Amino acid sequence: MAKQPILTPRATDFPQWYQDVVAKAELAENGPVRGTMVIRPWAYEMWEHVQAAVDRRIKEAGAHNAYFPLFIPEDYLKREAEHVEGFSPELAVVTHAGGKKLEEPVVVRPTSETIINSYFAKWVQSYRDLPLLLNQWANVVRWELRPRLFLRTSEFLWQEGHTCHATEENARDYSIQILRDVYEQTMVDVLAIPVLVGRKTAKERFAGAINTWTCEAMMADGKALQMGTSHELGQNFAKVFGTQYLTDTGEQEYVWQTSWGVSTRMIGGLIMTHGDDDGLRLPPAVAPVQVVVLLVRDENGAGERAAALAADLRAQGHRVQLDDRVDQSFGRRTIDWELKGVPVRLEVGPRDLAEGNVTLVRRDTGEKRPVPADTASKQVTELLAAVQQGLLDEAAALRQARTADVATLDEAREAAATGFARLPWSAVGTEGEAELARSGITVRCLQRADGSLPLSEAEPELVAYVARAY
Amino acid sequence: MAKQPILTPRATDFPQWYQDVVAKAELAENGPVRGTMVIRPWAYEMWEHVQAAVDRRIKEAGAHNAYFPLFIPEDYLKREAEHVEGFSPELAVVTHAGGKKLEEPVVVRPTSETIINSYFAKWVQSYRDLPLLLNQWANVVRWELRPRLFLRTSEFLWQEGHTCHATEENARDYSIQILRDVYEQTMVDVLAIPVLVGRKTAKERFAGAINTWTCEAMMADGKALQMGTSHELGQNFAKVFGTQYLTDTGEQEYVWQTSWGVSTRMIGGLIMTHGDDDGLRLPPAVAPVQVVVLLVRDENGAGERAAALAADLRAQGHRVQLDDRVDQSFGRRTIDWELKGVPVRLEVGPRDLAEGNVTLVRRDTGEKRPVPADTASKQVTELLAAVQQGLLDEAAALRQARTADVATLDEAREAAATGFARLPWSAVGTEGEAELARSGITVRCLQRADGSLPLSEAEPELVAYVARAY
Repeated sequence: MAKQPILTPRATDFPQWYQDVVAKAELAENGPVRGTMVIRPWAYEMWEHVQAAVDRRIKEAGAHNAYFPLFIPEDYLKREAEHVEGFSPELAVVTHAGGKKLEEPVVVRPTSETIINSYFAKWVQSYRDLPLLLNQWANVVRWELRPRLFLRTSEFLWQEGHTCHATEENARDYSIQILRDVYEQTMVDVLAIPVLVGRKTAKERFAGAINTWTCEAMMADGKALQMGTSHELGQNFAKVFGTQYLTDTGEQEYVWQTSWGVSTRMIGGLIMTHGDDDGLRLPPAVAPVQVVVLLVRDENGAGERAAALAADLRAQGHRVQLDDRVDQSFGRRTIDWELKGVPVRLEVGPRDLAEGNVTLVRRDTGEKRPVPADTASKQVTELLAAVQQGLLDEAAALRQARTADVATLDEAREAAATGFARLPWSAVGTEGEAELARSGITVRCLQRADGSLPLSEAEPELVAYVARAY
Repeated sequence: MAKQPILTPRATDFPQWYQDVVAKAELAENGPVRGTMVIRPWAYEMWEHVQAAVDRRIKEAGAHNAYFPLFIPEDYLKREAEHVEGFSPELAVVTHAGGKKLEEPVVVRPTSETIINSYFAKWVQSYRDLPLLLNQWANVVRWELRPRLFLRTSEFLWQEGHTCHATEENARDYSIQILRDVYEQTMVDVLAIPVLVGRKTAKERFAGAINTWTCEAMMADGKALQMGTSHELGQNFAKVFGTQYLTDTGEQEYVWQTSWGVSTRMIGGLIMTHGDDDGLRLPPAVAPVQVVVLLVRDENGAGERAAALAADLRAQGHRVQLDDRVDQSFGRRTIDWELKGVPVRLEVGPRDLAEGNVTLVRRDTGEKRPVPADTASKQVTELLAAVQQGLLDEAAALRQARTADVATLDEAREAAATGFARLPWSAVGTEGEAELARSGITVRCLQRADGSLPLSEAEPELVAYVARAY
């Protein structure tokens, strides 16, 4: 039976493929209010696994979770000039509550630097209180005119970290620690997405920051996705909110701050990095179901054997689903599990079993092989590790193949049609950046020639990565 | 050195004691917008442990997590008459967003029955889709005129479950399963708070439900706190939103639904159930720090021994904090850890160590005893279990002592001055309920004489629990 394509092929129309897979794999739907999103269980469970991975690493980096209010007095946002300029076009404003018009309108948080600083100013007194390292898991609202599910939604879920430090260097080190040890590690080890780690140009930095570090990934269509950012805020918010500390030599100083976040946007990155024309391909670390045990026909004890294998795999700590819906067609069920991206399929049928075998299928490569039923569960464990690594390698190979070293803006524009262009930052500069922007191309990040992080965009011999981006 | 009381004694002014402990133990602060709340790390970590306990049990009950938007079209709320009547005085309304006035105002969700039903109506097609069991962890907003931290805040954090079933009986069974296996179990086994489980009267039920089950706890001042509710929604929302399914005999039927939630209010219950005049007393299951290893003085290797004991306890899976701030007074540090409610304190000092001992202190009873340092970590494990059970037993004993069996409304009023009154529901009835309300007393729940759950408030020989409540 030939497969009917249920998704628009990626080569035909990548954005339509993305919409198709989000709908058909039951990942998300549009909310009734413009740009909002319903996250369905299959995608939400991926988010839970990502959350757990990020949360664990944040705690290892010494930060504690807290929760600050959704509603921020409008006045707070206005205190930091660049910040309000960046966010005011996207704000949602509550003007009525409890049946009355509010005396002062409140905004729904687009991010929480301002409200959190109003507490930091009270909590931080002396150098003994530093560093102060907080994080919150929350929803935020930024009104979107051109929403796309997961990638750009009017409400999204994220974590936002906010910290205070005694010196600029401490703040910078911590912003880099979060970038590397939390974000880059999670993206590579958990999401199986290789990322470029670099510095944003002044034009691209967070509104109110003195520097933004970023993790940039290449999607399967060659476009970039900003997967997470970590900001040095300098003393900008501290000065506006009066967040000061007494040094050990008895002077009052403003704290140096960082903020950093990753969001449900990462789920969009996961889909667009690994998906193929049959649907999702999920890294086992985030797959709601890592192994589906698919009963082909319930004859000659195959049903019992399938159930036993599922139980055995579960006991080994895998997330397992037994699919024994033998009243539905085998082909249809196979297609559905492929669409949903389950990394490993274990097919159990009477014919194979007669020879002592079951069939193992890898979702990433499609490779199918019979294995003795007795050794299946051991082989599944190995296969899961292989799929996790295989997806990362494949994405890394694509990025390498689609990253071109170029020398001029014209060449960069050409290369950006299909992937990333890498060129000397001196060949771009602020003017070149503006020129590229007119072709819909942005500087994704700056790195030193050896790939390390520049402390200023004025450093000599920096390399710029430019691309079209989501 | 006599202890200076840092909290208003409970007997002097219980509400003031509560405010004091919330502030001094750094649990929460008021937000800048009326009734909102900042949850500080010490309380937020308790919430994380409660969340984990509830989430695990919800998943065991077969429900999956999802996420629905914060913003609901105003029109949705209005479709179910009782629902909108119940919630409209508490709504926060967004009228402007993205720099423009919205064509239709949107409300910030006070609860999500309406928006979720608009999706259920699409997702539920046939009896094969049932039961449909979803849950979300979210923030909700209900404008409060008399806010109290944790207990009654304009924004709070909760989970809300929403389910669809084929029959009324299935829905009822599931609403009870959640009440018992998720809520009651978590409250008793994790929060160490005994709860009465019963049926709300028609007057007290959720706006739009046909029945509300509740978990009611007694606080240390004898007042009741509603800790969690589980509702049978009947077909009310299904009819309004058209949530129908095709039965196996080919007919279209409306689904029967439930919804259920617990919130950060439970943290308020935790404080008011277990706290004493020295501060919090935390059950180990939710304590951010279960054991503090307190170094008395760093002499004769005491510092190394304390660090080694802390490491040993950590390796056994306990949450441990080493307090080696020997430059601060021992008494002050002790008072602070008592204020924070850490269940077990292990004091390590050179004098005890010279005899091979350390000192173990239980926060719940204050009991102090020297134990051989070599056996300390084994004894800590036992002590943690003893504190968990001890707090539950103490709360159960208080509830028993303060629950009076009475026969008349007058007696009920008198008993409710200090605790719960239990009397025949036939001696109260709708008129008696209204009369008690004038004295600030409410019917907390109805039970059958044997303590089981009544299927209707018209059943004969029901028992009513009445009390003042938060």
